[in-house]
Amino acid sequence: MLGRITIDSLSPATPSRRFPTKAIVGERVTVSADIFRDGHDLLGARVRWRHVGREGKGRWSTAPMEDRGNDRWEAVISPTQIGRHEIVVEAWRDRFATWRHDVEIKAGISHDDVELELEEGARILEALAAGVGAGDRRRVLDAAAGLRRTSCSVHVRLNAGLDDRVARLVATVPDADLTEAPPLPLWVDRPRALFGAWYELFPRSEGGFDGAAKRLRAVADMGFDIVYLPPIHPIGVTERKGPNNTLGAGPDDPGSPWAIGSAEGGHTAIAPELGTIEDFRRFCGEARDLGLEVALDYALQCSPDHPWVREHPEWFWRRPDGSIRYAENPPKKYQDIYPINFWPESDADRQGLWSACRDVLDHWIDQGIRIFRVDNPHTKPMTFWAWLIERLQRDHPDVILLSEAFTRPKVMAKLAEVGFSQSYTYFTWRNEPWEMRDYVNELAYGPTAAYMRPNFWPNTPDILSGPLRHGPAAAFRMRFMLAATLVPSYGIYSGYELYENEPASDTNEEYLHSEKYEIRRRDWARPDSLAPFIATVNDIRRRHPALQWLKNVRFHGSSNDRFLVWSRGHRDEGDLVLVVVNFDPHSAQETVLELDLGAIGLPWQGPYTAFDELTGDAFAWDGPNPYVRLDPWEGQVAHVLALG
Amino acid sequence: MLGRITIDSLSPATPSRRFPTKAIVGERVTVSADIFRDGHDLLGARVRWRHVGREGKGRWSTAPMEDRGNDRWEAVISPTQIGRHEIVVEAWRDRFATWRHDVEIKAGISHDDVELELEEGARILEALAAGVGAGDRRRVLDAAAGLRRTSCSVHVRLNAGLDDRVARLVATVPDADLTEAPPLPLWVDRPRALFGAWYELFPRSEGGFDGAAKRLRAVADMGFDIVYLPPIHPIGVTERKGPNNTLGAGPDDPGSPWAIGSAEGGHTAIAPELGTIEDFRRFCGEARDLGLEVALDYALQCSPDHPWVREHPEWFWRRPDGSIRYAENPPKKYQDIYPINFWPESDADRQGLWSACRDVLDHWIDQGIRIFRVDNPHTKPMTFWAWLIERLQRDHPDVILLSEAFTRPKVMAKLAEVGFSQSYTYFTWRNEPWEMRDYVNELAYGPTAAYMRPNFWPNTPDILSGPLRHGPAAAFRMRFMLAATLVPSYGIYSGYELYENEPASDTNEEYLHSEKYEIRRRDWARPDSLAPFIATVNDIRRRHPALQWLKNVRFHGSSNDRFLVWSRGHRDEGDLVLVVVNFDPHSAQETVLELDLGAIGLPWQGPYTAFDELTGDAFAWDGPNPYVRLDPWEGQVAHVLALG
Repeated sequence: MLGRITIDSLSPATPSRRFPTKAIVGERVTVSADIFRDGHDLLGARVRWRHVGREGKGRWSTAPMEDRGNDRWEAVISPTQIGRHEIVVEAWRDRFATWRHDVEIKAGISHDDVELELEEGARILEALAAGVGAGDRRRVLDAAAGLRRTSCSVHVRLNAGLDDRVARLVATVPDADLTEAPPLPLWVDRPRALFGAWYELFPRSEGGFDGAAKRLRAVADMGFDIVYLPPIHPIGVTERKGPNNTLGAGPDDPGSPWAIGSAEGGHTAIAPELGTIEDFRRFCGEARDLGLEVALDYALQCSPDHPWVREHPEWFWRRPDGSIRYAENPPKKYQDIYPINFWPESDADRQGLWSACRDVLDHWIDQGIRIFRVDNPHTKPMTFWAWLIERLQRDHPDVILLSEAFTRPKVMAKLAEVGFSQSYTYFTWRNEPWEMRDYVNELAYGPTAAYMRPNFWPNTPDILSGPLRHGPAAAFRMRFMLAATLVPSYGIYSGYELYENEPASDTNEEYLHSEKYEIRRRDWARPDSLAPFIATVNDIRRRHPALQWLKNVRFHGSSNDRFLVWSRGHRDEGDLVLVVVNFDPHSAQETVLELDLGAIGLPWQGPYTAFDELTGDAFAWDGPNPYVRLDPWEGQVAHVLALG
Repeated sequence: MLGRITIDSLSPATPSRRFPTKAIVGERVTVSADIFRDGHDLLGARVRWRHVGREGKGRWSTAPMEDRGNDRWEAVISPTQIGRHEIVVEAWRDRFATWRHDVEIKAGISHDDVELELEEGARILEALAAGVGAGDRRRVLDAAAGLRRTSCSVHVRLNAGLDDRVARLVATVPDADLTEAPPLPLWVDRPRALFGAWYELFPRSEGGFDGAAKRLRAVADMGFDIVYLPPIHPIGVTERKGPNNTLGAGPDDPGSPWAIGSAEGGHTAIAPELGTIEDFRRFCGEARDLGLEVALDYALQCSPDHPWVREHPEWFWRRPDGSIRYAENPPKKYQDIYPINFWPESDADRQGLWSACRDVLDHWIDQGIRIFRVDNPHTKPMTFWAWLIERLQRDHPDVILLSEAFTRPKVMAKLAEVGFSQSYTYFTWRNEPWEMRDYVNELAYGPTAAYMRPNFWPNTPDILSGPLRHGPAAAFRMRFMLAATLVPSYGIYSGYELYENEPASDTNEEYLHSEKYEIRRRDWARPDSLAPFIATVNDIRRRHPALQWLKNVRFHGSSNDRFLVWSRGHRDEGDLVLVVVNFDPHSAQETVLELDLGAIGLPWQGPYTAFDELTGDAFAWDGPNPYVRLDPWEGQVAHVLALG
């Protein structure tokens, strides 16, 4: 049975309406719905929401909804606690407002005609008084009495009953035709799920955990928030890959960290060449002391030497000759890796496998890890992730999972829908200003924005793409600036600051001598390192709250289409940043900006200041069309301007 | 528990996903969904659908779905039976296609490497053979044997197994990871729910049913399909309205037919001044003989004299002085009408009322009526309509309900969603070519198109609007042409053909001397009557299947923005009609058309014929830019051109 009032098209909701949308604590979440009833009566509506944790359900908070036109009602809520929430939209007939609306029109025509209405109004107020707080009840009853006072004129009595404060009091009493919509689930994360700078490094290239710990100071000085480590587990020896993904590794070849598992252990063990679990704990402690959080890789696959292969052959695919199938994506072959069969025939086997996968995460959570970068989640069932993440976050609502799903758009979005906190994106392959603008608008305001948070990576150990391939230093600055200032979360893989950019081949977007198969020693002290530039940009990100949100980006015009121009924030919110990037790393370009000043709170007439956070220069601008020139050969790829 | 395969964003579906979408028998319904699975395996998918009637569930039909790109799968189904249907989308892993895809790539690299794969392929075929029809099973098993035949080369064996026909046979076996989406409900109507021309007349103005029966021949000759009668029930005497909605009717004033009920009876009785039930039956019989179907008005409200007021005072609102509240929409008052309280406090009263409302329809259905025009449905609860229509159509799937909901857009759409077969629209207030184009595109292709069918009325007894007010005869031709050829269902109210257009006042869009309150005698024999023009257009509608569908309209450009230009159909479908209308009824206009020839199946180069169905002229056109001139003073407001 439907309620009397229609409450439709609720937002925020995911496409399937089966999973929570996402926010962070303190985020302003707009809740809206189509709300209407038969006839012409006026309605009231509100949002109720509460935290729903393992320990029980929190107290309801409420916010009144307002009709924004065309029967669309809206309220803004701002959750303060991490974890699961439920949001309920409810609506009712506002009997007093309806009465008041009608009687005001009628009284405007003839006072004689409204005597009976005054009695009806009094009865409505008396009925609603019970729903008003005890402190205000007397005021409502007095208004009812005022409507009835026979010694007064209709005019005086109407004014007594039509007290605005009384109307507001009784309007919030969900009295007649109360209808509530099914609850909307909302997942609230800690702020790091939205805003953070990631730095990926291979500890073995620094000599293991102890050596890597020595790099942490430099990483912290560059202003990163998260240090992400590729798998730190023992690496298989069977079919181990040599340099450049070749078969037949030599005795000194370290193998791919993603070929997880050896006689030394599997996903819960530490590779001996990196150190011990104590070394790992010390590394994490030093990171923490520097304000860095450590993220681990969660790669659900096994080398042929992983203990699971022996203990649980039922978790793998067996071929007609009895061998176990290795990973393939024809014509590519990964002989050093066995994929896991996440859907073994027996339910008991599936439960055993899925629980074992969860135990791995629990193990590292027990070690204090709360952020995981998940390898190739699109090759495991959505159902598995839905199951895993729901259970994981029920116990540990501070866990953040980054989905490495460089896959088809709908698969990427679905992984976000079933629970991943963040997702790698197609940023790496968006190289034109217009396509970058469209893509960021889609991410910030498109249908996935309620549940998918982007994390922009100019490079990864697997991906050397676009203008970085053979590109000049300016290309590295430019792509870094885009990633760091278009969206709140981004990351780079170490070596980026040294402009590493030799591709595996013209058709292979991986690196030559990829660190996945070799130990790389780097000269971190190189004088031309991008590190100071990175430090400056990360500092700007931390000082400007406008750069810490996704849904505040607005693109502006440029007379030269090699530029991308966007603002974040709004002057009325106290922070407004304008970024101007020259997409051409090879030549100086100039442009006249076409700023939508009204939309960001600046006057169309009169001067304002543009303070360049990169150089310290302050420009006095006037009007929407300032001139900009950026010359990559002078190190200028962008302006990051605080406007005010 | 979710299935292994994701099946999302199913279409067609209504916004709330709680009510059926709509089609007519023979309509091509595109069923689509996002379908994907983890990993790279190839999928198969199909639609299953069946009729679900009172008498039980029909047999499943199936149609294979195809991937149209970006993981969107699609199939077209065409139901052949009226009534409720359910549609199930299901998907599975196509094990053989996946195997074949991989082995073909591998075999392209090295034949030695695929020996084991051939055995795997044989096993897959053997497993799938059980799901193939008995007649084809041998062929599948032979292919499996071929893959194993050790005396042949890998090349020969591959070809044996990679038989396309075998691949197609086993591809349809829902074998691995079978996942089915929740069923989509679809309501299938008879064709009249989509295509029909309505003519509204007041039988009392023709002297009752016997007199009105004499008009039927003329209505049939004009080519109408449906004769719609305002309420035919006894009219109340208490507070009866006089001419022009005045209070204090004289003894000869007939009253508004919408003030239903008197001592002679209520919604199931016949107004004595119209005749008897036998006269009504005879009228219906004569209509039927002329190919006309009679539609009645379903107006759920009562005059103060309606038997329900005495028998069921609990169905009305009582005021503090004990009186019953009459209808008001301040400052308008309808003292001759009591609205019904559709949500009385007691559940038993509600059930009693709703059942009584249903009994009214059942009564007229027993009299052979199957089409109802429902008065002001937006003032009754959506829940009531959902309840009523579901039950009604379960027993009588041939019933058609037209919603008279001249209300807000979301309320209009929701009434369609909960079950109304057709809806009045905002056509009457769309007077510019650009807004008409946008509106028709919205109706045909927008979010409501899956469940809301428009019915365009240039006028009604309540509405004399736009260019018809004080407009010349050309305005009547023009608005008629738009209604009759933009969408498949339309209607006019009698008097339109005589250009009646005196408004009640400059601010009131009703008629002066509205037939709602007075008996109108008309000179049907007037030589300038629009009847022959109407007959011509209705004949064109019947001869051209393209004019009988909604979702085949396409707008074309015009150098002069006073024109609207659109086509219906496609040359490949065997029928293609182009309509060109001059929106200016006061002056001749000329234009150069900008036809999208490719989109309608005509060549960009070379001649084609445009045969004017109104005049019999044939034009030899060449290319996308023919010249058109239409002079309303010569009676030319439109071309209706058969293109070929």
